[in-house]
Amino acid sequence: MSLIVQKFGGSSVGSVEKIETIADKLAGFRDAGHRLVVVVSAMGGETNRLLALAHQIQDSPVPRELDVLVSTGEQVSAALLSMALNRRGFPAKSYNGSQVRILTDNAHTKARIMDIDVRRLHAELDAGNILVVTGFQGVDEQGNITTLGRGGSDTTAVALAAALKADECQIYTDVDGVYTTDPRLVDGARRLDNITFEEMLEMASLGSKVLQNRAVEFAGKYNVPLRVLHSFEDGPGTLIRTEEASDMEAPTIAGIAFTRDEAKITVLGVPDTPGVAHRILGPVGGVGIEVDVIVQNVAEDKSTDFTFTVHRNDMNRAAAIVTQVAGELNARDVRTDDRIAKISLVGVGMRSHAGVASQMFAALAEVGINIQMITTSEIKISVVINEKFLELAVRSLHSAFELEQEPTLLADGRN
Amino acid sequence: MSLIVQKFGGSSVGSVEKIETIADKLAGFRDAGHRLVVVVSAMGGETNRLLALAHQIQDSPVPRELDVLVSTGEQVSAALLSMALNRRGFPAKSYNGSQVRILTDNAHTKARIMDIDVRRLHAELDAGNILVVTGFQGVDEQGNITTLGRGGSDTTAVALAAALKADECQIYTDVDGVYTTDPRLVDGARRLDNITFEEMLEMASLGSKVLQNRAVEFAGKYNVPLRVLHSFEDGPGTLIRTEEASDMEAPTIAGIAFTRDEAKITVLGVPDTPGVAHRILGPVGGVGIEVDVIVQNVAEDKSTDFTFTVHRNDMNRAAAIVTQVAGELNARDVRTDDRIAKISLVGVGMRSHAGVASQMFAALAEVGINIQMITTSEIKISVVINEKFLELAVRSLHSAFELEQEPTLLADGRN
Repeated sequence: MSLIVQKFGGSSVGSVEKIETIADKLAGFRDAGHRLVVVVSAMGGETNRLLALAHQIQDSPVPRELDVLVSTGEQVSAALLSMALNRRGFPAKSYNGSQVRILTDNAHTKARIMDIDVRRLHAELDAGNILVVTGFQGVDEQGNITTLGRGGSDTTAVALAAALKADECQIYTDVDGVYTTDPRLVDGARRLDNITFEEMLEMASLGSKVLQNRAVEFAGKYNVPLRVLHSFEDGPGTLIRTEEASDMEAPTIAGIAFTRDEAKITVLGVPDTPGVAHRILGPVGGVGIEVDVIVQNVAEDKSTDFTFTVHRNDMNRAAAIVTQVAGELNARDVRTDDRIAKISLVGVGMRSHAGVASQMFAALAEVGINIQMITTSEIKISVVINEKFLELAVRSLHSAFELEQEPTLLADGRN
Repeated sequence: MSLIVQKFGGSSVGSVEKIETIADKLAGFRDAGHRLVVVVSAMGGETNRLLALAHQIQDSPVPRELDVLVSTGEQVSAALLSMALNRRGFPAKSYNGSQVRILTDNAHTKARIMDIDVRRLHAELDAGNILVVTGFQGVDEQGNITTLGRGGSDTTAVALAAALKADECQIYTDVDGVYTTDPRLVDGARRLDNITFEEMLEMASLGSKVLQNRAVEFAGKYNVPLRVLHSFEDGPGTLIRTEEASDMEAPTIAGIAFTRDEAKITVLGVPDTPGVAHRILGPVGGVGIEVDVIVQNVAEDKSTDFTFTVHRNDMNRAAAIVTQVAGELNARDVRTDDRIAKISLVGVGMRSHAGVASQMFAALAEVGINIQMITTSEIKISVVINEKFLELAVRSLHSAFELEQEPTLLADGRN
């Protein structure tokens, strides 16, 4: 008999029919003897409806009241799901953030969880109840309602699982797991049975939006086994866990992530002197623009080319700043390009396998793709290429690293 | 500088536009130096929307979860009104039943208020905040959300006014006060400046649905001056207060209430022996049917006729029960009539003025209306007549008691 925390997002509880389906599913888990804590988001569309009301009244609604307003969304779905479970003969009780006492700081609309009081939840579980907890929200020390911001419900689920020392935290979504790459792009994309927290973080930050990184980080920190599953289809999903939990060496590459969200800015002919990178990027960071990949070419004739990427939406703003700095530096020119794509190989096995980079470059060269920028980390290699070659590049790499095949040799360790 | 508790119902906060209008109104009160605690209902239609969702899931939704669900309605309007006030530069904070700590018993969907913790509210008022409190809800000792049932928001407002020792509790509605009788029936119907709690209770229980009796009783018990006003029109409304608060004698009649909701059941030829009334009405009350007027005629030939009224919806059920009892009693017949109306004169001044009854009967006789039943209490005389004479009767009585005229002689006492 396991204790499982399960989280269902807004689309999973988006209508009475879907709530009924989820209730059937939960009834099955309960029949199998599991103890359940269910975390729910607001019904799909409800949060937006509430936000629209608020914005009719105030352009920037008071954060305290915005939290009071939007927190009602989860309370509605928690109550409805509890009713559906009770109708099926399974005693269930809803709990909102204040009732559990999910204590947060007082940073309204983006609060952080500080503590969870699990005494009452344990008592309810011992009494045989299914607990339906509102995701996304908590309460500060003064009793004000707070919300956790983006990805908040996933974070609630993981935090509850950690506090309750649950056996597993299951995040139900509209995909059946984490894939080696986007299945819409590569037919051979394969669902992973396992992935490490580190790999999942890299995959997510690189564009695979299955889970919010905040929840993955939290799970990693407290070593909560995290499983991604489909809300309405059966299947094992993908288990995210620590590297140490695998009893065999991991395969070299877990997956290929990519993003079209970035744009490239190049400053040509800047003097190759100390402090130039800071002169250029300091003002960009100063206005809150995040810089991703940074490359500086080897200097020729005491001048160099300096290239970096920003989010595509920030390109024009960043270019304007950089153009001014370039003038001060007597740089030759500033060029921008928003037709780029970034592709990343991710895998903790990369640490112990040399030659991943050269194998990657070879695979891209073979299909004639020019690499514009390269950046590496311990478990990731990213390249920036012309956007029009994105699909070709991902397919070639997926095939070159044989990701469509179950890693048979290492299957025991990853399954 | 007064402390005023103001309550706005669902139709007063039924849209963003109406919330803006209420916010303007409150801004005016604040500018005038008043300290404000505002109680709001759910936006019009919202409670029904939530109930419809619940009933899609469960025919009789678990009461605990029903309360969790519907209590979100007031939380939404409280947050929106707070935003609207903040936008106008008036610091405002919403408080739900649990945050105030409106402690109730645990009778979900019909809880009773047991205690209100006013420390935090006083601190917020001292800090210059307008408080917007969710009506209709509270929290039990275990922290479960409860709702107060029908008329709950009025009760919340009165209870808060009593606990805070407010100078006045103002109930904003869609009428501009309490009238001598229904203005839709009598052109000369006049808004009363004052009425006593007792008179208001009688008027309400007899069909004038301006306020729920529960709130009026509560206000009377704690001597909270209660004022009924129109949400969107200016005017003094009607002040409901204790009889002692008037420094002159009250006029004989405050108003005329009436109802078409009742039906009459007569048992003909029952034996005139002790215990017969109980034999007839015991089984009726036993199934939860409320009996209103009861009349037993003077006996002739050791048998009598026994007549009583019930709510029109209960007539057939009551008649079936009574028919069975009538058989056991060897009564001659059972007759029903749902074409009746009950008309009542209400006024605390009646206590000290003889002859009100005879003046009433004379006025009705003058226009040829036959009285079927009569019942009296200390501050009320009710008659049952044929429904088709209702309008004629009310107009005749309104005119006979000169209710269209301000009671000049006693004006100081009533204004």
